[in-house]
Amino acid sequence: MLFLPIIVSVFTIIFAIFLIRQIHRSPRGSGKMIAVSNYIREGAIAYLKRQSKSIAVVALVLFLLLWILLGFETAFGFLLGALFSAAAGFVGMMVATQTNVRVAEAAKKGLSPTLDLAFRGGLVTGFLVVGLGLLSISGFYLLVQDLKPLIALGFGASLISVFARLGGGIYTKAADVGADLVGKIEKGIPEDDPRNPAVIADQVGDNVGDCAGMAADLFETYLVTIVAAMVLGALIFPGESAVVHLPLFLGAIAILSSVLASFFVKLKEGQSIIFALYKGLIGSAVLSAFGFIWVIKNSVDSINLSFWQLYLPALVGLLIAGGMFLITDYFTSKKYGPVRSIAEASQTGHATNIIRGLAVGMQSTALPVVLISLGILISFWSGGMMGLAIAVVSMLSLAGMIVALDSYGPITDNASGIAEMAGLGNNVRSVTDSLDAVGNTTKAVTKAYAIASAALAALVLFSAYTQEIQALGAKVFFYLEDHKVLIGLFLGGLLPYLFASYAMTAVGKAGQKVVEEVRRQFKEISGLMEGRAKPEYGKCVDIVTKAALKEMIKPALIPVAAPVLVGLILGPEALGGLLIGSIVTGIFVAVSMTSGGAAWDNAKKYIEEGNLGGKGSFAHQAAVTGDTVGDPYKDTAGPAINPMIKVLNIVALLIIGFLV
Amino acid sequence: MLFLPIIVSVFTIIFAIFLIRQIHRSPRGSGKMIAVSNYIREGAIAYLKRQSKSIAVVALVLFLLLWILLGFETAFGFLLGALFSAAAGFVGMMVATQTNVRVAEAAKKGLSPTLDLAFRGGLVTGFLVVGLGLLSISGFYLLVQDLKPLIALGFGASLISVFARLGGGIYTKAADVGADLVGKIEKGIPEDDPRNPAVIADQVGDNVGDCAGMAADLFETYLVTIVAAMVLGALIFPGESAVVHLPLFLGAIAILSSVLASFFVKLKEGQSIIFALYKGLIGSAVLSAFGFIWVIKNSVDSINLSFWQLYLPALVGLLIAGGMFLITDYFTSKKYGPVRSIAEASQTGHATNIIRGLAVGMQSTALPVVLISLGILISFWSGGMMGLAIAVVSMLSLAGMIVALDSYGPITDNASGIAEMAGLGNNVRSVTDSLDAVGNTTKAVTKAYAIASAALAALVLFSAYTQEIQALGAKVFFYLEDHKVLIGLFLGGLLPYLFASYAMTAVGKAGQKVVEEVRRQFKEISGLMEGRAKPEYGKCVDIVTKAALKEMIKPALIPVAAPVLVGLILGPEALGGLLIGSIVTGIFVAVSMTSGGAAWDNAKKYIEEGNLGGKGSFAHQAAVTGDTVGDPYKDTAGPAINPMIKVLNIVALLIIGFLV
Repeated sequence: MLFLPIIVSVFTIIFAIFLIRQIHRSPRGSGKMIAVSNYIREGAIAYLKRQSKSIAVVALVLFLLLWILLGFETAFGFLLGALFSAAAGFVGMMVATQTNVRVAEAAKKGLSPTLDLAFRGGLVTGFLVVGLGLLSISGFYLLVQDLKPLIALGFGASLISVFARLGGGIYTKAADVGADLVGKIEKGIPEDDPRNPAVIADQVGDNVGDCAGMAADLFETYLVTIVAAMVLGALIFPGESAVVHLPLFLGAIAILSSVLASFFVKLKEGQSIIFALYKGLIGSAVLSAFGFIWVIKNSVDSINLSFWQLYLPALVGLLIAGGMFLITDYFTSKKYGPVRSIAEASQTGHATNIIRGLAVGMQSTALPVVLISLGILISFWSGGMMGLAIAVVSMLSLAGMIVALDSYGPITDNASGIAEMAGLGNNVRSVTDSLDAVGNTTKAVTKAYAIASAALAALVLFSAYTQEIQALGAKVFFYLEDHKVLIGLFLGGLLPYLFASYAMTAVGKAGQKVVEEVRRQFKEISGLMEGRAKPEYGKCVDIVTKAALKEMIKPALIPVAAPVLVGLILGPEALGGLLIGSIVTGIFVAVSMTSGGAAWDNAKKYIEEGNLGGKGSFAHQAAVTGDTVGDPYKDTAGPAINPMIKVLNIVALLIIGFLV
Repeated sequence: MLFLPIIVSVFTIIFAIFLIRQIHRSPRGSGKMIAVSNYIREGAIAYLKRQSKSIAVVALVLFLLLWILLGFETAFGFLLGALFSAAAGFVGMMVATQTNVRVAEAAKKGLSPTLDLAFRGGLVTGFLVVGLGLLSISGFYLLVQDLKPLIALGFGASLISVFARLGGGIYTKAADVGADLVGKIEKGIPEDDPRNPAVIADQVGDNVGDCAGMAADLFETYLVTIVAAMVLGALIFPGESAVVHLPLFLGAIAILSSVLASFFVKLKEGQSIIFALYKGLIGSAVLSAFGFIWVIKNSVDSINLSFWQLYLPALVGLLIAGGMFLITDYFTSKKYGPVRSIAEASQTGHATNIIRGLAVGMQSTALPVVLISLGILISFWSGGMMGLAIAVVSMLSLAGMIVALDSYGPITDNASGIAEMAGLGNNVRSVTDSLDAVGNTTKAVTKAYAIASAALAALVLFSAYTQEIQALGAKVFFYLEDHKVLIGLFLGGLLPYLFASYAMTAVGKAGQKVVEEVRRQFKEISGLMEGRAKPEYGKCVDIVTKAALKEMIKPALIPVAAPVLVGLILGPEALGGLLIGSIVTGIFVAVSMTSGGAAWDNAKKYIEEGNLGGKGSFAHQAAVTGDTVGDPYKDTAGPAINPMIKVLNIVALLIIGFLV
């Protein structure tokens, strides 16, 4: 029965390899472009290698701990999840660094072939994320025939993801802040100027943060959601293997739909870029909706749920994904009120820009939370807890297409940078820039999608936690009146705040080091400003690499240590509260940060288009401040909350046996 | 038995009147000072009158609704609570506007007599808040001998408080932002310069926001906490009047202790100002701790709890109050790391100042939440839910002294402004300024104390809500696994975010109108900049009054409407989740905003003292931006969350009968 998901995932990986070969056939351009691209790739590989070493130490300790406490299979699952998660991020990033220069070259031929190539680069990462995800779960499950090690598989993936999101996020924003503060503001040279010593580090950051970090994050989200649904299915319907396999089948169908729908993404005459991309997403969703009919019809035979009881939640999941798209687009696109109100507030200065941006970020949480609540209500009404699990799996089944839409962004961003540094013409730059602006919105959308699915997946994990406690025969109840549950809620609510504040502080500290190095180079290398001497790019890459890795460790350990401490000291009730508390504040912190940050970014872009005084105006200066504040919000702290919540929940699931 | 609290509260009110007469005997200074002071008083009275009219419409509708749905006694209780709350705010503010000019005059004679007079002004508000609070509860309870109308008494107080905090908060910050943006930044004239058309509105704002708004807030917190403890006592120990009266007795003892301890506040040679103030607080706490022994010994006879089971929580409550003081002092005082790190981050610009400030705000939530969790744990372990109730009552019993410490702040702030506008010498200004700086910290401390007590009081209210449902014979359970409870938690978590974003937007909108008016006056009144013509202060006062009142209505109705809608549509389980969800995110939003805002403010003051480049430096400009962002955080959105959470809980308690 498990062969369908395995065949589909292997097919998807082969398709991704086919796409890579297609990309490789595309021309790489001339000498200077290749040189810049090589710098970027080398920096990115060097960072990921060192990041892997740092994580390997933590992973090895956890591997041994899991082996001793929970047996070899569980420890092995953890290792496998960690390796696959790292692989998804690494290969995706490698492809991105090979595609970027080719996209810059393709941009000479116009918008349509450029989009085509950049999106193909994104598709590789997307298909690798879901292909490797589905393959690791179904293959490992086939091997061990036991769900407990699968939870550890999720743990491995989530842990890598927290590190990758944090490390990559700190890297990319520290380099960005450092490059901007000295280059743009102190020296007055443009973005991506080759004289800026931090310019390569900045481009590397796009790859290690937005590509590798994001891929690991979505891989984790995808994998954990499917595992959680399988575990829950087994707990609610003991002995019914059809229910346990259902999430894998839904995933397989959705991947096939995404592969088909990827051919819909073509930029036709007169169409907007975002519409071309949406055709792919809508296509995946519609094809999946049809495919799910067949899968669910075949699965409900053996259990006491009707077809509609599970199919309706599956549709709800697809609709939540679509709804999150529309809502995030409204709050982060230059076309609508929220972003424009930030741009207008910039006219009265830095402070009013910030106040307005913070308010927009907070407001942007309302509709997603109402949408999620509605989704929970309908799924539950329809199919109980299993209904909710199916809704999340369905929502997440679109991950392949969504990752593709997201990771085409950093590819075009990098292409813009390469075009600038290699001195290509303005027409190339205008093509890559117009693709990049759309990339900003798709990036924000992916994050909102990830955190919404994280909240729902965490609820499924929490339900698995409570069901598992019952299955162990313990009498533990989670009454809201119980003071231990309340304390757990407070402490859990604290975690996203603490985590985010550490992440933001880390960006500040690492950025400070970059600022100092860039200032030093401008001072000590004579002729740098005049373009007669070359900056030492490698020094900046090296400094930000070290700083990011150093700063990522402390916050990343919070979600591993907190559930163990609370569980052991205060007991399983407080731990249950902790899990829910972290979701309740986590979703607000994450959405307000990611949407608010993207809105700040696009408010700046809106002014740069010539509105409200345009580039160089007082309003523009204020908007640059807002964008800089938004950077650690949207690219470091906000998105890292998603895997953090999942790690919390998975660790809780793993340690239950010691608590009751 | 109720005569002790009644006698004590009447005595306290008489003592406050005695203090007012003492203040009146102090000299008012010369002509110009009196003129400025009169402007401020007139503006403040005009605002409060109009605010009262606006609120009266809402209050009347609710009064009629309560009468029809719950009977006359409940409706009357609501009205009484509203009136007493408004009275506490109004009288406190009147005294402040009469004390400010006398403090400016006293400052000619040195620090010690100035502190003496300013603190006396603060004591009046403090004693009125607790005196009127205790009197209204014990008197009304003596009259109706029923607890249900007492809940409505709390509702009246809370509703006024939401309006007063919001309206006053929007007023004070809109005027502040307007005066600063045009006066300081565009025109380059100093703070409190009489040429600035918004300068009087700014001073009025200190009174209507920091005095009247704060007094109404603490009155509400005090009253609702005691009522909640009484209701809970009656539900847990039916028929035991000693338990129901216990909170009133604890309150009475603490008030007497505060009156005695108020004589300890004297500035001795070589002592710091903050230490002189702390002597009063520590004195109240120690005297109360002794007094509580007697009260609790007499109360526990009839119930199955031992002396220590209730006395330990009472001590815990006092310790939480002290702990909140120390923690907030650490995060907001110029002496320690957090504020200095913001000041240092200002050196690299606006954005890094903001990033650091946001991170400090988020970090500052950790210790308070851990302290509160510890408090809950110990109180519960000792005396169950009743133990927690006693801990909160004990914590709140210090409110008189804390309000005195807080409201001495705006009095000295106003005195500074009057000294500046009346052209008094630098030595006067330096006396009032050094008192004002300490006032910044005491203000932040009060807010942290209020929100911490609000979280605990809301838990007591939630417990009353669940107990009341049981008492009504309904079978409603609040399992964390129940999807309706989860939806409630999400929707409840949303409310502080939505409320805060509305409040921040409101400040922006109202501030924009002030900016336009000030710009107009500088343009149209010839000779204004040169000091030959006088600005039209009244126009600014008028504009900000209208704008604040218009903007306050929408957010203030959120906590009234939300529980009714969620309760009726989704049922009592979701409503229970809503209550807890709002506390969980509310405490983080409120503490991060109030502490973060105060830290930004003091980072600016730290630089202005000559550190890191001093006034006019690049770092100073960035610090001014941070301070402006912090303004709506700490004085509008953050503190208004406290009464909002309480209104939510009280409305839920009032509508239970219709839900089960």
